[in-house]
Amino acid sequence: MNYKLRLMYDGTHYAGWQRQQNAVTIQGQLEEALLVITREAPAVTGISRTDAGVHAADFTANFHLTAPCDTARLCRGVNALLPRDIRVISCEPCAEEFSARFDAVRKTYLYRMDISPYGNVFFRQYAWHLPYPLNLEKMQQAAAHFLGCHDFSAFMAQGSSAKTFTREITESRLVQNGEILEYYITGNGFLYNMVRIITGTLVAVGKGKLAPEAVPEIILSRDRTRAGMTAPAKGLTLFKAIYNDAEPCDVY
Amino acid sequence: MNYKLRLMYDGTHYAGWQRQQNAVTIQGQLEEALLVITREAPAVTGISRTDAGVHAADFTANFHLTAPCDTARLCRGVNALLPRDIRVISCEPCAEEFSARFDAVRKTYLYRMDISPYGNVFFRQYAWHLPYPLNLEKMQQAAAHFLGCHDFSAFMAQGSSAKTFTREITESRLVQNGEILEYYITGNGFLYNMVRIITGTLVAVGKGKLAPEAVPEIILSRDRTRAGMTAPAKGLTLFKAIYNDAEPCDVY
Repeated sequence: MNYKLRLMYDGTHYAGWQRQQNAVTIQGQLEEALLVITREAPAVTGISRTDAGVHAADFTANFHLTAPCDTARLCRGVNALLPRDIRVISCEPCAEEFSARFDAVRKTYLYRMDISPYGNVFFRQYAWHLPYPLNLEKMQQAAAHFLGCHDFSAFMAQGSSAKTFTREITESRLVQNGEILEYYITGNGFLYNMVRIITGTLVAVGKGKLAPEAVPEIILSRDRTRAGMTAPAKGLTLFKAIYNDAEPCDVY
Repeated sequence: MNYKLRLMYDGTHYAGWQRQQNAVTIQGQLEEALLVITREAPAVTGISRTDAGVHAADFTANFHLTAPCDTARLCRGVNALLPRDIRVISCEPCAEEFSARFDAVRKTYLYRMDISPYGNVFFRQYAWHLPYPLNLEKMQQAAAHFLGCHDFSAFMAQGSSAKTFTREITESRLVQNGEILEYYITGNGFLYNMVRIITGTLVAVGKGKLAPEAVPEIILSRDRTRAGMTAPAKGLTLFKAIYNDAEPCDVY
């Protein structure tokens, strides 16, 4: 039996999603809890390998069990064992062939920037503090240039195993919420550190170091050195994912 | 010279506002930073003595210095010394007789409740987790009964030095924000633990243990044992304050 899990986690104290030998990770914590509750040792597949410090508001995962299980009891049991910064939102049986990783049609990330001069205490783990003037209108113009199908090689960190570099971005917009600036980006897939490098590029535009019109040229250049810095992990949250079994995601 | 400070703090790791000999407090941290920056040792007066674990989004304080100071420099210097969970939002000279405590005309508190079954990880330090069904309509009705001028003795914890018990409540409303329930209460003053006991009473109504119509009777009884439990400190945030020198607050 295949089970689909929805999770939420505060990534501050974890070395990312993926299980590691000598570090505490979300996948590691979850697999340990599942071992106790199910008395099986399922390998959990996650929608993405979030980096150390990255958060998730709605992270999809799946795992297989040989014995059938009571999903409500599993939710309660796993949540009782997990630390309070990782929670199972829901668990339900799903199609045997469902993969949280390969069946995601679109993912939305939220990157938060704190533009207050002092640094909002409630966002200190969830936003990049930028205590200097930013031209938000130019950042908004730059954000729009990421829409569409592009080869995003210029916005990919080294160490990626990706074989294709074209992704389709269907949402790329900034929303100002008081002193918190929210950047939402939705796409059919993302290269390694792509959202953080795009955000770093938007901030370079906001500071006047890059013109919004430079973005299409940087995309075409496929040259990582021309894009902005990689924004800090703590500002990034995997916000939501859309699954549609009829349209498998073919970009991985 | 008298200076007015606006602060923001995450109270999770502090034993409340008030300086104590053997505990880390907001006032203690702030006074230590001011000593270094101003080379004077000003006593800081705060708008209220928030309890251990209570937060503040906009907390007003004031202090006197003998030497004039550059307030922009003071802000930067104090923020550089303070831990990241306490921030100075602004500092400005104010009237010599201004008191952050006695001149507050109205204060607004926000109490957050998390009504998700699993417990939102991002609110684990900022909301009371209530993972069971609550009748929000009845809670809303109960909240309205707190409006107006009342003797709130039934909603006061022991250990208070208050001499008068009548306070005027001008806002008392619940706002649902997804799985986070926000309770806003504004008044000209609050007795010790009053907001937390009112919130505990609203939750007793939500669970069906009390009828909304019982609230006026409990107020009239002046009997603490008839009100609900004291809600946990972590859900409470001092949200904002209104000052108007023409209308001094006379309830303290």
